[in-house]
Amino acid sequence: MSLKLIEKHRSFGGEQYKYRHYSKSLQCDMTFSIYLPSNKEEKKIPLIWWLSGLTCTDDNFSQKSGFQRLAEKYQVAVIIPDTSPRGENVADDEGWDLGQGAGFYLNATQDPWAKHYNMYTYIVDELTATATTLVPHFSGEQSIMGHSMGGHGALVIGMKNAARFKAISAFSPISSPSQVLWGIKAFSTYLGEDKTSWKEWDASELVKEAGMPPILITQGTQDEFYPKQLDEITFLKNARENNQVVHYKKAEGYDHSYFFIATFLEEHFAFHMEYLK
Amino acid sequence: MSLKLIEKHRSFGGEQYKYRHYSKSLQCDMTFSIYLPSNKEEKKIPLIWWLSGLTCTDDNFSQKSGFQRLAEKYQVAVIIPDTSPRGENVADDEGWDLGQGAGFYLNATQDPWAKHYNMYTYIVDELTATATTLVPHFSGEQSIMGHSMGGHGALVIGMKNAARFKAISAFSPISSPSQVLWGIKAFSTYLGEDKTSWKEWDASELVKEAGMPPILITQGTQDEFYPKQLDEITFLKNARENNQVVHYKKAEGYDHSYFFIATFLEEHFAFHMEYLK
Repeated sequence: MSLKLIEKHRSFGGEQYKYRHYSKSLQCDMTFSIYLPSNKEEKKIPLIWWLSGLTCTDDNFSQKSGFQRLAEKYQVAVIIPDTSPRGENVADDEGWDLGQGAGFYLNATQDPWAKHYNMYTYIVDELTATATTLVPHFSGEQSIMGHSMGGHGALVIGMKNAARFKAISAFSPISSPSQVLWGIKAFSTYLGEDKTSWKEWDASELVKEAGMPPILITQGTQDEFYPKQLDEITFLKNARENNQVVHYKKAEGYDHSYFFIATFLEEHFAFHMEYLK
Repeated sequence: MSLKLIEKHRSFGGEQYKYRHYSKSLQCDMTFSIYLPSNKEEKKIPLIWWLSGLTCTDDNFSQKSGFQRLAEKYQVAVIIPDTSPRGENVADDEGWDLGQGAGFYLNATQDPWAKHYNMYTYIVDELTATATTLVPHFSGEQSIMGHSMGGHGALVIGMKNAARFKAISAFSPISSPSQVLWGIKAFSTYLGEDKTSWKEWDASELVKEAGMPPILITQGTQDEFYPKQLDEITFLKNARENNQVVHYKKAEGYDHSYFFIATFLEEHFAFHMEYLK
């Protein structure tokens, strides 16, 4: 994979990089961002994945969460993919909750989406291979977190690769996508109307399998999308019935924004670091 | 002054507000943002002003600096004005370093700018009167900080009102505007070609007066604007000759971005709190 460095900023002692590259699994040019802590002591460095929500690129988390302070504090690398394939030749939709900016971290099977919309393979295979070469002194340990659609992505990718990811966390995730409008719209478009094909991309189904990584979820009580899009009941019920470790925390008065994410990010980093050490 | 609340987000325990109002001194509608810490102990709360740089609105610092964590930690309110008058009827320029987004925190005397471009009066009189009513348990103590053009603004407003502002700090400020292209362009446009009128808006002149507030400046060594726009020599020479307390720190490898600001913001808050207690 040929990488072009397009931005570099020193931040909290480490470096924030942004790259462009051609993705074979998505068949288009993509950008991603990666933060490397200073690692002055040349220790082994683990890697956290951040998956963003609808309409985001890899810039939102870089610019608005303040995560670099925590990545430097805990000496962990953080990689941030974009949220969908991109470009004029890539299928798109007028809605902001479908098409570009809304890849839902799955592999599409329906036309015209199947050609490019393979964010799952892009992240789990292609970008993983790249990222692990970009982290000097990489420890081999990884975990995954995300927000909203990216919370869904973190839960799904983390649980489908339970041996690889030591911990999973999510801010206001779409944890039961087959039950809510965003998920139903995306799954019926990308996967088709046969709901049996939806199960492998639905966290509330995946959590039925034994031995999932420990999971932390934080949900703001004033989140404008909470009532209709972020139903947690199916997920929590299935997690409980299968004895999974799921911490589900309500944050009183918080909304769906990066103001919310920034506030609770330290708690999420601390949770991940328990399992990455 | 009639205020309309247009955004409210809980953030790090406090609240981030964004208001719209009609400004008499600018003769147009303006927005500003203000953060109020939780103040659970109902103590007296001081107020820090943040002035942003060229092209910014009141959103950049709100969304990209992570300052809310520090404002809550230190229990201080923070107010963020926009960087110029705004609107279709307000004079503008094609360049991003003049007109809307580039008010330079002064009172213009030249047409067509004089009618609206009175950011100095707006901040020092009009918005101050409003802000102090928005901070419950306001201690009466204020200080001021800013970035780039806003660093110039913080130095100028802070020194012209030395009795009011307990401390001043700036990230990569235009500290000698009469010596650099950005400042010369703005001052000749807003104030006219007679350079004697520039002196009251030039920090390197104002610092000659005795008894200025303590000043902290941080400048990144890889700042792309440092070589041509951010010459500090005139300012530091005049400060030294007049025995002002000026801490001028170089940050190795940092650029002009919010990644730089976010990194050193805690040091600036700690500096201000020394004088706001």
